[in-house]
Amino acid sequence: MTAPYVLNPLLDLVMERIVDVPPDLVWLAWTSPEHLKQWFCPRPWTTPVCEIDLRPGGQFRTVMRGPEGQEHDNTGCYLEVVAPSRLVWTGALEPGFRPSSKPDPSGVGPFTAIITIEPHGTGTKYTATAMHRDPEGCQAHAKMGFHEGWGAAFAQLVEMAHELQRTR
Amino acid sequence: MTAPYVLNPLLDLVMERIVDVPPDLVWLAWTSPEHLKQWFCPRPWTTPVCEIDLRPGGQFRTVMRGPEGQEHDNTGCYLEVVAPSRLVWTGALEPGFRPSSKPDPSGVGPFTAIITIEPHGTGTKYTATAMHRDPEGCQAHAKMGFHEGWGAAFAQLVEMAHELQRTR
Repeated sequence: MTAPYVLNPLLDLVMERIVDVPPDLVWLAWTSPEHLKQWFCPRPWTTPVCEIDLRPGGQFRTVMRGPEGQEHDNTGCYLEVVAPSRLVWTGALEPGFRPSSKPDPSGVGPFTAIITIEPHGTGTKYTATAMHRDPEGCQAHAKMGFHEGWGAAFAQLVEMAHELQRTR
Repeated sequence: MTAPYVLNPLLDLVMERIVDVPPDLVWLAWTSPEHLKQWFCPRPWTTPVCEIDLRPGGQFRTVMRGPEGQEHDNTGCYLEVVAPSRLVWTGALEPGFRPSSKPDPSGVGPFTAIITIEPHGTGTKYTATAMHRDPEGCQAHAKMGFHEGWGAAFAQLVEMAHELQRTR
């Protein structure tokens, strides 16, 4: 069965990487709070809180903390959990599938994130997609630095995975 | 595993019925377009269009037509499809999990619907829940006639199921 979502270049931001990290480590990095906290925010930001209830309808919460102590508390709802290849969540719903009432000061609006993790030789082809409701939200997210931010975070994920490979 | 959603009396509307219709017929009525069209709108409204892609992320679309020809076109996204006992969809997402950009002239806002179908003797305990993002949306939906409308439609479902039982 094909995936149910259809991308649209006017509405979606996509980041692709091919890396020498096995798929199961990329999955672990996204689904274990202990591991996610180590890479999720580009330094010097950190991720002091991560709560994961890994099932459709379950909570995905992170708190991102900046160098001056400012915090962003983000709560989303998982939609698809297909280990070790696809993880989908949205900010348009609160955990438990309730429509979100969160205000949107950024102008980005809620987005749905799709992480796909495909085997590529002994490594992984990684794709992170952010689906927006309108072109304005998509452009605002690009301007806020989607590619730079998600790219820097993923580089930290790869670094952590290499360290795990050396020590296990 | 318990269901991931948590109800809130300030945010949710719930309709419960116990009926002498077997669970599989209630499920059929909700998941087969041909059958859904026969009961979904309280008469004299009709449901000339119903499109169902029965999987998480799939489309649930209905067009409701009034006696003066006015039409309401509603598109939602399925979240949980657990035959024959639970069906969940939301108007907060378009099909494919994209956050919805639909305007909301009614003030109800998007809601998530949960249909649970439990065996009760030879019949069914039926529960329809609408989860809203805020108390205002919940109250607006109640005022619009949630209980009357969903109740009248479900009575038509039961009538159709009895007819199916007589003829099969």
